[in-house]
Amino acid sequence: MKYTLVKELFRNTSQYVDKEITVSGWIRSVRASKAFGFIVLNDGTFFDNLQVVINSDLENFSELSKLNVGSAIIVKGKFIKTEGAKQPFEIQATNVQVEGTSTPEYPLQKKRHSFEYLRTISHLRPRTNTFSAVFRIRSIVAQAIHRFFMDKGFVYVHTPILTGSDCEGAGEMFRATTLDLNELPKDEEGKINNKEDFFGKETNLTVSGQLNVETYAMAFRNVYTFGPTFRAENSNTARHAAEFWMIEPEMAFADLIDDMDLAEEMIKYIITFVREKAPEEMEFFNKFIDKGLLGRLDNVVNNKFERITYTKAIELLEKSGEKFEYPVKWGEDLQTEHERYITEKVYKKPVFVTDYPKEIKAFYMKLNDDNKTVAAMDLLVPGVGEIIGGSQREEDYETLLNKMKASGLREEDYWWYLDIRKYGGCNHAGFGLGFERVIMYITGMSNIRDVIPFPRTVNNCDI
Amino acid sequence: MKYTLVKELFRNTSQYVDKEITVSGWIRSVRASKAFGFIVLNDGTFFDNLQVVINSDLENFSELSKLNVGSAIIVKGKFIKTEGAKQPFEIQATNVQVEGTSTPEYPLQKKRHSFEYLRTISHLRPRTNTFSAVFRIRSIVAQAIHRFFMDKGFVYVHTPILTGSDCEGAGEMFRATTLDLNELPKDEEGKINNKEDFFGKETNLTVSGQLNVETYAMAFRNVYTFGPTFRAENSNTARHAAEFWMIEPEMAFADLIDDMDLAEEMIKYIITFVREKAPEEMEFFNKFIDKGLLGRLDNVVNNKFERITYTKAIELLEKSGEKFEYPVKWGEDLQTEHERYITEKVYKKPVFVTDYPKEIKAFYMKLNDDNKTVAAMDLLVPGVGEIIGGSQREEDYETLLNKMKASGLREEDYWWYLDIRKYGGCNHAGFGLGFERVIMYITGMSNIRDVIPFPRTVNNCDI
Repeated sequence: MKYTLVKELFRNTSQYVDKEITVSGWIRSVRASKAFGFIVLNDGTFFDNLQVVINSDLENFSELSKLNVGSAIIVKGKFIKTEGAKQPFEIQATNVQVEGTSTPEYPLQKKRHSFEYLRTISHLRPRTNTFSAVFRIRSIVAQAIHRFFMDKGFVYVHTPILTGSDCEGAGEMFRATTLDLNELPKDEEGKINNKEDFFGKETNLTVSGQLNVETYAMAFRNVYTFGPTFRAENSNTARHAAEFWMIEPEMAFADLIDDMDLAEEMIKYIITFVREKAPEEMEFFNKFIDKGLLGRLDNVVNNKFERITYTKAIELLEKSGEKFEYPVKWGEDLQTEHERYITEKVYKKPVFVTDYPKEIKAFYMKLNDDNKTVAAMDLLVPGVGEIIGGSQREEDYETLLNKMKASGLREEDYWWYLDIRKYGGCNHAGFGLGFERVIMYITGMSNIRDVIPFPRTVNNCDI
Repeated sequence: MKYTLVKELFRNTSQYVDKEITVSGWIRSVRASKAFGFIVLNDGTFFDNLQVVINSDLENFSELSKLNVGSAIIVKGKFIKTEGAKQPFEIQATNVQVEGTSTPEYPLQKKRHSFEYLRTISHLRPRTNTFSAVFRIRSIVAQAIHRFFMDKGFVYVHTPILTGSDCEGAGEMFRATTLDLNELPKDEEGKINNKEDFFGKETNLTVSGQLNVETYAMAFRNVYTFGPTFRAENSNTARHAAEFWMIEPEMAFADLIDDMDLAEEMIKYIITFVREKAPEEMEFFNKFIDKGLLGRLDNVVNNKFERITYTKAIELLEKSGEKFEYPVKWGEDLQTEHERYITEKVYKKPVFVTDYPKEIKAFYMKLNDDNKTVAAMDLLVPGVGEIIGGSQREEDYETLLNKMKASGLREEDYWWYLDIRKYGGCNHAGFGLGFERVIMYITGMSNIRDVIPFPRTVNNCDI
């Protein structure tokens, strides 16, 4: 490598002291007098900046003094420890080459910008402190998830994005088509002839890889997906995006307890991994975005998650004396206000709620012996509410078929899903984790648009 | 864990000898006489099977003897080393519980099936030796890629799938829409009113994340994408799918040499990682799918890749004396037959071909000083041809804008891409690696449909 990376300078400082090095990066600020000046440089590899000292001996000193924020430069110089100063070290430049200039119109001047404004320049916002921290954390969490599952022997499966089936009948989907909308082929009855479409039928963007990955669990035992999923819901909230990433592990020869054990271990692993790999970013979030964040995360890592049934949760809510906007009643789904009461007020830590009424959960969840509830679990966390939803899967062929039909799904679309109950079916369980929800939880960022590099929401697909 | 995993038994055999263990898995075959029998069991965690010995002392011995292939069972018994036998050890069952039966119609009977047939049961084929090996390797290669980049400090960026722009003008795309095709909203001129669509305009599935990820390279320096991409090409070849995964690294302050160095190091890393993590699977491919595979891969790891210019490649082809189907002429793109001649006949190892004529390469590639060629590179490998395509990027604003316009791209769609040349632009370079091409190369599998869990091709989107 021609350039010494700033991360290297921070992590292995002593190796570079008093050495000649070359660094390159982008200017965050310039202050200069007639005799000397300071350039704050970020090279992309590290959260913190490097201070570059320039002086009037440099032949282009005057040009450098006037460089706009955002310019790209290459700096040769001596690396010096600065005992007692604000920054731990600096580089005394002997040569500074301007690689790419910027302009006074550069949108990221030193002043603070609103997150709303920065969303309109999603191609530039990772150059700010907040978004540099968010998107480095996003990368690290993704790595944590892959390492967690690989170390446990799980096989990573790329389930398809384009799909002819509709998991859970999960509502609004995007259709993917190659038909020319201005000249749609029609059949004899005047309806769209879907046989002319690319796949010879109507296809949509996936809302979940679960059904597909279940078939792989019957081959590899422990598997997971990690990929984009889509919801075309016309909802403009801080928690919903049209395109987001999901992690869906699935285990054969496993029940709901195994499922919760896995989820708990995974969440703790992710937090520990992130705190170890990105201490500077996590300090930043704790200080500027969500005071108390680190304490909350420590609390999660150090405590066993609570596990209660839905029926018990209803009891707790009924006797809480709280006034909820939505009524509390056995048989109705828990709302975010209910979930947050349980996890924030009652237990003050993550809580698994299990065994929900069958009517409010998906067709593939295993019917319990009481014939009223299913072996489902949701993980609720303080500050966010539901972060994981999972279940043991119905492995009885007839029960599953009946529940599918009752949900309006067509047997001929799901013959392959039924097959895995016909040929060596077994106990199996899994869950879905919304990737962005985890990032929000770990960083304290409160809008999903601020944890996705190029967010897609209603009427927003610009960059 | 309640069950001992078969991988554990193979990797740490001595720890289990003469111990009571419980395993669970699926039956690959049963042979039984009146007094005793053998069940070959695969538990999903390992390529090889475990032999289970059953005898008539078991109360359900007769039921077990008649179990169909594919059944799921749970076996308690003693783990015994079997010196000199075909298999290194076995389990002598003291209790076998049938978890899920199978039927005589189970499609994966012991006989050999064609890959074509197995494609029609993509939910079951990972239970066969070949596809268990393919899809475990696929998972391991994905892990290798993430580790390689994370260890080098690259930030993983999820570029969007839904996009309003069309990288490279790369041809046929899928449109994603929520419009009701049977009742399309029309504007005054009778044309589709795209403002009524979910994003208020026409959007497509991405063909590449490169342009987006370039903007992140200007913040994090070294970045990569790894996600699904789409081509709606109506081509029915063994090398094209409508949905496939791509890896696209991008480096700031880097040129074409750095780009080739990275590509070479990555390919060598992946092969070394896979050979270490999946020796059984790799032996299988070498023996049954592609004799000579391991030798070829060793050759790749142990040799420096050749680097030649396109102009030199044309010279080599012209003086080869070979009869090619497509003519060889400076200015024309290299065909697969040409690429294979160079990498298989001339150099017998991977070859980077660089500096192609600007007319046959994408608008974003950096124009060389000769004004005729661009700083592009393709990596050609024996047996496959092109596996990687990359370039240094044009960082000059005016040159880029002119090339964009000449390619028919609209400035207003790419203002953000142009922005990164305005504000601190710098040398940068990257490449794209077709994930499935790598899997094919490493396993010797010759059809892309056989390395994607649920492949999507023209008229095929069933499971």
